[in-house]
Amino acid sequence: MFTDLSPKYHPLTVETVPAYVRSRPELSSIFRSDDDIESVEVGDGNLNLVFKVWAKADPERTVVLKQALPYLRLVGDSWPLPTDRARIEAAALEAESRLCPQHTPKVYFYDPDLYLIAMQNLNHHIIMRKGLIQGIKYPLFAEHIGLFLARTLAYTSDLVLDFRTKKLEVMRFTNPELCKITEDLVFTEPYRKTERNRFHPEIEPQVLALQADDSLRVQVAQMKEKFMTHAQALIHGDLHTGSIMINQTETYAIDPEFAFYGPMGFDVGAVIGNLFLSYASHEVRTKDPDARADFRKYLTDTVLQLWKVFEREFSKVWADVDSINMPKGYQEDYMLRVLQDSAGLGACKMMRRVIGLAGVEDIRGIENVTDRSIAASLALNIGQALIMNRREIRTIEELVEVATGCRPSYPWKA
Amino acid sequence: MFTDLSPKYHPLTVETVPAYVRSRPELSSIFRSDDDIESVEVGDGNLNLVFKVWAKADPERTVVLKQALPYLRLVGDSWPLPTDRARIEAAALEAESRLCPQHTPKVYFYDPDLYLIAMQNLNHHIIMRKGLIQGIKYPLFAEHIGLFLARTLAYTSDLVLDFRTKKLEVMRFTNPELCKITEDLVFTEPYRKTERNRFHPEIEPQVLALQADDSLRVQVAQMKEKFMTHAQALIHGDLHTGSIMINQTETYAIDPEFAFYGPMGFDVGAVIGNLFLSYASHEVRTKDPDARADFRKYLTDTVLQLWKVFEREFSKVWADVDSINMPKGYQEDYMLRVLQDSAGLGACKMMRRVIGLAGVEDIRGIENVTDRSIAASLALNIGQALIMNRREIRTIEELVEVATGCRPSYPWKA
Repeated sequence: MFTDLSPKYHPLTVETVPAYVRSRPELSSIFRSDDDIESVEVGDGNLNLVFKVWAKADPERTVVLKQALPYLRLVGDSWPLPTDRARIEAAALEAESRLCPQHTPKVYFYDPDLYLIAMQNLNHHIIMRKGLIQGIKYPLFAEHIGLFLARTLAYTSDLVLDFRTKKLEVMRFTNPELCKITEDLVFTEPYRKTERNRFHPEIEPQVLALQADDSLRVQVAQMKEKFMTHAQALIHGDLHTGSIMINQTETYAIDPEFAFYGPMGFDVGAVIGNLFLSYASHEVRTKDPDARADFRKYLTDTVLQLWKVFEREFSKVWADVDSINMPKGYQEDYMLRVLQDSAGLGACKMMRRVIGLAGVEDIRGIENVTDRSIAASLALNIGQALIMNRREIRTIEELVEVATGCRPSYPWKA
Repeated sequence: MFTDLSPKYHPLTVETVPAYVRSRPELSSIFRSDDDIESVEVGDGNLNLVFKVWAKADPERTVVLKQALPYLRLVGDSWPLPTDRARIEAAALEAESRLCPQHTPKVYFYDPDLYLIAMQNLNHHIIMRKGLIQGIKYPLFAEHIGLFLARTLAYTSDLVLDFRTKKLEVMRFTNPELCKITEDLVFTEPYRKTERNRFHPEIEPQVLALQADDSLRVQVAQMKEKFMTHAQALIHGDLHTGSIMINQTETYAIDPEFAFYGPMGFDVGAVIGNLFLSYASHEVRTKDPDARADFRKYLTDTVLQLWKVFEREFSKVWADVDSINMPKGYQEDYMLRVLQDSAGLGACKMMRRVIGLAGVEDIRGIENVTDRSIAASLALNIGQALIMNRREIRTIEELVEVATGCRPSYPWKA
């Protein structure tokens, strides 16, 4: 953010990776000097190069190298992005690892010259979004992510940190350019006519009606203000199901390059919102009614359970605060506000995935146009219901009821 | 905050001031090399040395030197305070001067070695609190302070600053130790038993009842959270009537060493709360009922008018925002939330002045114990009513009604 590009910066390639990893003493326990080292570039994001690297003799001896590019890959070098985000990501991973090591990838080192993080290769895990699209259930996910959210959010807030540490952490995690991406793509562009929106033409009537809805834009503006001004905790900042690596026994939150001090509900809402995006997609992805109901019950049970785990783990912090100045009534009010923020902020994350530049495969990946329109329409209706009703929501059960009470508006009634 | 004391630091004295001011080229237009220079130390605050300095031949050729002490003067050197606050104050004065020069003292220079600010000597003005105690009306105050609040708050918020500047300004004005004083003295200690509280014994029953009120402590905790997490604008941070230098034609806001990015309502509420502290004090300070009613009408008219000026000047910012993403309904909601924050945060400023370490002369300066208890009791009741009813307040008229509807509880009913 504050410095020019390091003079030593150069993007790695599969040709230069082997020499680089051999040069790093932090990896000497993984790679031997005579190892034949192979790598492949797998970055499917928009901001970075990602290399999977392994010893040819033993693919289990492996690391991932994630290197920041100085521009937003999706739109080419017309959108410069500061490489300082790699420092932020490394620092966020360090904080998450300290607070919740079981759900944070191990970091071997951060190279400030190459803006590169060397970390654990989660090669026995898949991106959760891809699993959910296939209808795979992850029975431990709610327990894992509820713990991750509670530990990383509660323990970076004023409820735990002393007054000075908290404020210095806010400075250290100041992340203007990445926040700006969220401000634009999540809170601004979906609610107006812009060239970067990418909804498909079939749902245009619903999008135009939503953009014309003044009362909705008032609520979205409140959520944007909260995102920009509420320095509540160190949030991951991009905790959708594409940032989660998972299998039947383990869950890892990856890619916290959007981390900054923001509202807790933005992370909790990202998880919940993405589960409801999956819910909306299975309206058409799973044709058999029983199978659909079964998978959807898994999704809504997951929402219910992750919140209960979050509350349970968060309550360990409440047990240690001074109850004279923070009486029980305040603690309950605090958690209720996190819940309502999660509804409103998660709703914004849902709606932008249908209307805005960056979609999700759950919905945009549906090939049949009618099916895709049905799922997109339902996702928009769930988002709209959550944000408009958030102040009336008092329990996680009520949040789920608001969402599951929605139906797609497509095909349009005559 | 981040550095050790400058090796060149030394507290000035009336003996060393003349040579110091002669050595500064920035003052060469005020003092001549052959001037006989006199000075007096007048700091009645707790944090600083303040020298009034003038040419013996012409007392109108004059400056004020304000030098930070490395400890809190009120309690001696047991409470170290970082001299970095002088940098913050100089930077805040510079920002205020750019946005509202007519109500900000002129700064000649900031000396980072001595943590010293040389500024305009407001020698034709008095501290507003002292004027209000004497029952002096300042008919232009509402217009002046309303403008100052609107200019300094609106133009340092996300409504005006670009995304990067705002976040870098939040960093530059990070002010942990001074914020901690407010967190402790305004939001924490008045609501619990602590050695530093200094209410007089006659009102102890009301203080104990207030401290025992769970629902009040819930509201205060919400206000403290807002103070600690809501980075809305660059606030003065200590804008009570003791930080205002005034006469019949001019108004200056001084001493922004508590400045940081916080909720707008903390500044607006400080002004309103201190006007209501004066209102409470004149319950007994002005014995004649007509004179009392007349001065109180001046005070409440001032509250009404300063808010209307604030709104009017703030509306110039709203005229320039994008009304698609920030529709009229959001703008109205934003101003309402500032009003409600002002009620709640101003209420905390009132109550702490009765219960906590730092009192105000308006009330603590009343010699007769019964009179003092009546005024203190009324101030507590106004504070309590404002914070408990703030969510129902929708206009400045309603805010004033809530306050003026209060009566003292002292003397206690049998």
